[in-house]
Amino acid sequence: MKITCEKSELQKGVNIVSKAVPSTTTMPVLYCILITAKDDKIILLANDMELAIQTELEGTILSEGNVALNAKVFSDIVHKLEDSLVSIEVDENNLLTTITCEKSEFQIGGNDGDEFVDLPDYKEQIASPILISQFTLRELIRQTIFCVATTEMGNKIMMGELFDIKNNELRVIALDGHRVAIRKTALKGDTPDKKLVVPGKTLNEIIKILQSDINSSLDIYYTQNHIIFEFDKTVVVSRLIEGEFFHIDTMLSSDYETKISLNKKNLLKSVERAILLTNEADKKPLVLDIKDEVVEIKLKSAIGELYEELYVSKEGRDLTIGFNAKFVLDALRVIDDEEVTMYMSNSKAPCFIRDEEYNYIYLILPLNFATI
Amino acid sequence: MKITCEKSELQKGVNIVSKAVPSTTTMPVLYCILITAKDDKIILLANDMELAIQTELEGTILSEGNVALNAKVFSDIVHKLEDSLVSIEVDENNLLTTITCEKSEFQIGGNDGDEFVDLPDYKEQIASPILISQFTLRELIRQTIFCVATTEMGNKIMMGELFDIKNNELRVIALDGHRVAIRKTALKGDTPDKKLVVPGKTLNEIIKILQSDINSSLDIYYTQNHIIFEFDKTVVVSRLIEGEFFHIDTMLSSDYETKISLNKKNLLKSVERAILLTNEADKKPLVLDIKDEVVEIKLKSAIGELYEELYVSKEGRDLTIGFNAKFVLDALRVIDDEEVTMYMSNSKAPCFIRDEEYNYIYLILPLNFATI
Repeated sequence: MKITCEKSELQKGVNIVSKAVPSTTTMPVLYCILITAKDDKIILLANDMELAIQTELEGTILSEGNVALNAKVFSDIVHKLEDSLVSIEVDENNLLTTITCEKSEFQIGGNDGDEFVDLPDYKEQIASPILISQFTLRELIRQTIFCVATTEMGNKIMMGELFDIKNNELRVIALDGHRVAIRKTALKGDTPDKKLVVPGKTLNEIIKILQSDINSSLDIYYTQNHIIFEFDKTVVVSRLIEGEFFHIDTMLSSDYETKISLNKKNLLKSVERAILLTNEADKKPLVLDIKDEVVEIKLKSAIGELYEELYVSKEGRDLTIGFNAKFVLDALRVIDDEEVTMYMSNSKAPCFIRDEEYNYIYLILPLNFATI
Repeated sequence: MKITCEKSELQKGVNIVSKAVPSTTTMPVLYCILITAKDDKIILLANDMELAIQTELEGTILSEGNVALNAKVFSDIVHKLEDSLVSIEVDENNLLTTITCEKSEFQIGGNDGDEFVDLPDYKEQIASPILISQFTLRELIRQTIFCVATTEMGNKIMMGELFDIKNNELRVIALDGHRVAIRKTALKGDTPDKKLVVPGKTLNEIIKILQSDINSSLDIYYTQNHIIFEFDKTVVVSRLIEGEFFHIDTMLSSDYETKISLNKKNLLKSVERAILLTNEADKKPLVLDIKDEVVEIKLKSAIGELYEELYVSKEGRDLTIGFNAKFVLDALRVIDDEEVTMYMSNSKAPCFIRDEEYNYIYLILPLNFATI
C-alpha cells in the first residue's frame, strides 16, 4: 500500500475514528486504526466491537492495500507532522510502515489489516433514513446524556438513551432511576415509528465528532441490532441495547399544585453556591421554600449553611421541597431559556422542569428533608 | 470581627495566599486562611511552615478581630459569590462566620485565629533589598525551574535553585545531576554579593502570583534562614535550603570542538516528533549526526524509528552525539531566540546550549548511544 494525503485531512480522519478505539480489549489488533486503500477510496476504520467508526479521506492511492497501525502511536505522529503532504507506504513483506512528511521519516511496525474486524454489515437490512441536522442531534444528546446511568445498577437499559420516533417526531429520553431527561424535535419527511435504545457510550463519542453547523445533515439508519449514523464521509455503527425501555409516558403528569417561573441564571448561580456545601458522602438536600413572589433556597450540611432568596412568579400553593442539588444543576445547565418553569404537586411527588411546548422535560424526584 | 470588601478584591487575595496552604499537614489549623482585621488593615495569611504568603485587602473594618477559615471552603464560596460587596462577620462566641453578598448568606464554622502560625519575623534582620521586576523574576524562574530535582535523590540542595548575586548580577541556577540551567540578569543599584538556595516548591508557587508586567517591581530580602519577596501588597516568606550549592563555574567550559547554529522552531518540532517514540521505561537516545550544513536527527526504539534532516551552520568537527530527548526539549521550550547555538566537544562531554552573552546556559550531559 502506498498513499498520499494532506496532513490536515489525515489528522481530521484520525481524530474521528479514534473515538472507537477501545481502551481495553482482548483482541490487540483493535488497538489499531485500519487504513485501507482500495477502489479509489482511502478509508480509516476503528472498531471496539460495540462501536465502529469509518471515515473516508481525500488523497491519492499509489498502490492498493491495507495496514493496521497502533492508534495512539499513529495519532501522535500525525499530530506532530508538518502541515504538508504526508506519504504512507507499507512494505508488503514485513508490514513496516514508512510515514514521510517534508524531511521527517517515521518507520513503525504495522499489523495485518486482514485480521481487523470490519464494520458490521448493515447495507442489506437498511431502513429508510431518519433525517436530522448534526447540530440538532448533538444538542438532543448533550441536553439529555447526563441522565444516562453510568453503571448498570441492575438494569442495562438505563445505560442507553431511548430514541423514540413517533408521528414524525424524535424524542430522546434518558433516565437513571432518580430523574428523567426528555428532548424532542420534529423530523423532516415521513418517518416510520420506531424505538431504539442507543448505548450512552456511543452517544458520548458521537457528540465529539458531530459538527455544530445547523446545515450539516446526518442520516440515521437501523437494523435489528445496530444503529447507523452517516454524515459527511463518516459512518458510525453502534450496537443497540436489547430490551424494552421504560414506559415513560405514564410517569409524565400535567397536573400540578404549584408552578413557579424564575430567572434561570440566578437560580443556576444559587444552586452552584449551594452545591459547595455538599459532598459525595453527605448529600444534604437543597431545600426550596416557595412562597408568593419569593423562593428561599437553603442548604445545611456539616460544612456550613446557605440561605438565599430569589424572586419568583408563583401560581398555586406554597410548598417546601428538597432536591439533590446536583440533579437541579445538571438540568439547569442544559436549558438555554432565560426563564425556567417548575411544576410540583407536593414534597414527595416528582418535580417537572419543562417549557410550554414540551420541547424539554426534566423530571427530578425530590429528597426527604428535615426542616432547617 | 466584621469587614466588607469587594468580591473581586477578596478573590484576588484568596487566590494569592492559597498557594501557601499545605496539601497535608499535622497542624489542621494550617488548612485555613487567616483573616485579620486590625490597625486599619485587612490581612489574609496562609502558611505551610516552609512557605508563608500574606496579602493586604482593600476594604472596610467595621470591627477588629481575626478568624481562620478552611481555605478550600472559603475559596470555593468566594469564587461563586456575585460580583458585589461582600461582608464577613464572625460571632466572637462560637466563631461562626457569616459571609453575605447580595441575597446570599453563607454560614461556616471558623477556627481560632490566635492558633494560626504567624509569618516568620524577618523585619529585624532585614538586609537592603534586591530590586527586580516581577516579570524578570518570573522569567528567570520559568526558564530554569524544570531542572530542579523533584525528589531528593540523596541531595536536598538539588531541590532548590541557587540565587547567586555577584557583581550586581543575579544568576539563577538549577541542576538535577543530568543537566544544568542558568539564567542571569543585571541588577539595578549596588547589591552585596550573596548566595541563597530557594526551594523549588516556593518558586513554583511564586511564579503563579507574579505579574507579567515589566513595570511591576519586587523587592527581595533575606535573613539567615529565610528569603522574603515583597511586591504589590503581598509578602512571600520562604525557608532557605541549608548547605552549599554546587560550584557550577568549574563545570562551565568555553572550549568546544563542534559548534552548530540552527533554527530553534524546526529543531523543537523535530525533537517533539522524536520524543513520541520514547517512553518512561525505554529512554532511547536522540542522536544528532552533525555534518557540514546538515544535522541528521535519529531515534530508534521499540515503537519505531525516526529520521530527519535539518539545515545547520557548523564550525569545527563532525560529531555524532546522543541525548535524552526530553532534556533537549525542556531547554528549547524556554529559549525565546529564533536561532539556537550548541557547543560540543565530543560524544561524552557536556553539550552547552547558550547565547553569545551567556544570558542563558543549558548544559546537558550526553547519553551513550548504539549506532543506529
